[in-house]
Amino acid sequence: MTEQLSGLTLIKGHIIEAKTFGDPVITENGYLAIEDGVVKGVFSEIPAGFSDAKKIDYSGKLILQGFSDMHLHAPQYPMLGMGMDLPLMDWLKAYTFKTEARFADNNFAREVYSRLASELVKNGTTRVCIYSSTHTDATLILMEELEKAGVGGFVGKVNMDRASGECQELTEESKRETLRWLDESVKFSRIRPILTPRFTPSCTNELMGWLGKVAAERGIYVQSHLSENKREIELVHELHPDCEQYWQTYEKYGLWTDHTIMAHCVHSDAREQQAMIDHNVLCVHCPDSNINICSGFAPVRQMVERGVWVALGSDIAGGAQLPMLQVLTGCLRMSKARAIETEGKEAFLTVGEAYYLATSAGSRYFGDADGFASGNPLHAVVLDETLLPPSARELTVKERFERAVYLADDRSIAAVYGGGRKIK
Amino acid sequence: MTEQLSGLTLIKGHIIEAKTFGDPVITENGYLAIEDGVVKGVFSEIPAGFSDAKKIDYSGKLILQGFSDMHLHAPQYPMLGMGMDLPLMDWLKAYTFKTEARFADNNFAREVYSRLASELVKNGTTRVCIYSSTHTDATLILMEELEKAGVGGFVGKVNMDRASGECQELTEESKRETLRWLDESVKFSRIRPILTPRFTPSCTNELMGWLGKVAAERGIYVQSHLSENKREIELVHELHPDCEQYWQTYEKYGLWTDHTIMAHCVHSDAREQQAMIDHNVLCVHCPDSNINICSGFAPVRQMVERGVWVALGSDIAGGAQLPMLQVLTGCLRMSKARAIETEGKEAFLTVGEAYYLATSAGSRYFGDADGFASGNPLHAVVLDETLLPPSARELTVKERFERAVYLADDRSIAAVYGGGRKIK
Repeated sequence: MTEQLSGLTLIKGHIIEAKTFGDPVITENGYLAIEDGVVKGVFSEIPAGFSDAKKIDYSGKLILQGFSDMHLHAPQYPMLGMGMDLPLMDWLKAYTFKTEARFADNNFAREVYSRLASELVKNGTTRVCIYSSTHTDATLILMEELEKAGVGGFVGKVNMDRASGECQELTEESKRETLRWLDESVKFSRIRPILTPRFTPSCTNELMGWLGKVAAERGIYVQSHLSENKREIELVHELHPDCEQYWQTYEKYGLWTDHTIMAHCVHSDAREQQAMIDHNVLCVHCPDSNINICSGFAPVRQMVERGVWVALGSDIAGGAQLPMLQVLTGCLRMSKARAIETEGKEAFLTVGEAYYLATSAGSRYFGDADGFASGNPLHAVVLDETLLPPSARELTVKERFERAVYLADDRSIAAVYGGGRKIK
Repeated sequence: MTEQLSGLTLIKGHIIEAKTFGDPVITENGYLAIEDGVVKGVFSEIPAGFSDAKKIDYSGKLILQGFSDMHLHAPQYPMLGMGMDLPLMDWLKAYTFKTEARFADNNFAREVYSRLASELVKNGTTRVCIYSSTHTDATLILMEELEKAGVGGFVGKVNMDRASGECQELTEESKRETLRWLDESVKFSRIRPILTPRFTPSCTNELMGWLGKVAAERGIYVQSHLSENKREIELVHELHPDCEQYWQTYEKYGLWTDHTIMAHCVHSDAREQQAMIDHNVLCVHCPDSNINICSGFAPVRQMVERGVWVALGSDIAGGAQLPMLQVLTGCLRMSKARAIETEGKEAFLTVGEAYYLATSAGSRYFGDADGFASGNPLHAVVLDETLLPPSARELTVKERFERAVYLADDRSIAAVYGGGRKIK
């Protein structure tokens, strides 16, 4: 059950904000001031006007920002951790398409998506940009289950009318179902639709063009995949010989616009990165998927320092880890693989930097300012370190934060707030 | 509380054996026949003579071999997941030596080691080769706590009389305490001592030579570190200009012998690998530590295929993951990093291959034959998949095994048997 925070509320604890891509800003024994579920600020003392506020006391505990998982495939949740020994194309055929096809069954969709939504909340993921399957009804069920659990964000019915095995749609069917889905989606308040051509190889030019038109006419965002692995990039070049680069296959059809989400971008060169910067495209780095599928070591620091907007995604089930704390530490580990690959020329990420990517960088997508900024809806995760190993001395709050990021699982997540509501 | 299996016992379930470095051998709905805690064999039907045996029914559940963690630092458990942003030498100074120095306090040692022993058991680690600190009393406490929890294996009081910060011993003190420790260790039955010169840079030649003599005279095994990172290798060359290769600094002092354990070996070349093969040295691959400390991508498949004896270690707290299931999947991920680095020339490991390294390869160190071979003491882990995500169809036992390896944490470990006793 979720519970809306109403009126004035003060939440007390060690408040850890990702205000920049760098060290977190820590307010020890601080107060998070909330009005009707919206952040008013972080204070060292009780702020003016809040002396009669309702108090929620997490003294001694760590209060982190809620996590945003900016790329994952909901219908792949039942195949989490499976087929990881297979090459990408075999994996898609043996597992992915067969699993996604199962979501023609609404009861199965309900069972999986209610479980997925609750696992997201348990692990502190309060917002998502998530792929459904091609099925309109299952997509609406996913939206319903997320909203019920208190998770916000964007859900996409997948479009795929080419080379898609069991999941392939007819072009007209894909269009018709997309419109039906968009029409029915208006009933949701915290979950909105996002157009989701799976990736260039699985959509005909006609469908891509039509989706670009819908995106422009209705002002709907777009999500897809980009430059994940080398074989895929070659295939895209074969399909679109007129495009010098992969991103242009989206641009050509009006799908490369402000707030377009592109997952992976492992092999994007300086020019493709510049195109992301120029169009305010969000690159979602998916560390566990990149290593499981042997895609490569994404140049995350390079992208961020050049000005690309980068956030994190679990990318289940290419990624085998749903908890964003694992995605965050996976990001740290993969940044070290990149540092090894570049012989230290590209420094690895710090815990604070990866925390920024897992929280504020994603929440900007939903209109938030960085950190627990005034005006943001409250998205927060409370960590209780009781279950972690005994320590050898009193730790600083920063050390406790860094340690908890590596060690905490859902058992150490004492409370979760999403969209101004207590959702765990 | 641990409980010895006495008389004849049949354990029923899906039995998954790592008989070779390859696919596991699966006996569905099989029987593990046990006599007084010792394996008699795996059978599809109740074997002759066992019809009146005590039955333990794990029907439908997966029965894996117990895990062997062949390299970890017990006194670093309180700093698990800490200081991961620091370069190796800063990390040693800021965290490692300071933390290890705390084990002069026996009460602290008792608190940490009882917790560590119970976490090992909870996660299915039934045998270890583990470093203590320099402290004799704390080392005896570690041995006691492991034995009490039902964990078997080898424990080493660390020797370090050079360049070791707070932890440095005087040479004579190191010798004297080593002898006291060896004398007092005879009281343990499942835990034995192993000589542990920390690594070449932290031991004087005199101490190394003395330890080599003790190893030979008393027939005691040796564990240390080898070729973990490039700066360390350079340092060893500076200290021992007479040795062409790092391993020769151990050989020179009689520390490179049958069953010597060398952690890491990330940068060992063909000649150093051959020296391991020639002397039956065990290389312990520590995937999480290798990535956290940016040591590099160890050529695990290459080593195994050349004939090096390779097993796995968590290497806490360079590694931040104690559960061997995480070490196993970390090994898979790091083997994929190696595959990426070599552009596919060195194929990544399969789940079955990494399972072999996490179980049988380590248990050979204790005299076991591969798999649940007749004559092995029973070391087994029972997995209950109830908490894992719903699946899209009925899975084969092999698929269930692969999935569980990626997804299970201690909550899915329903029972653990170590040394013929039920220990969880």
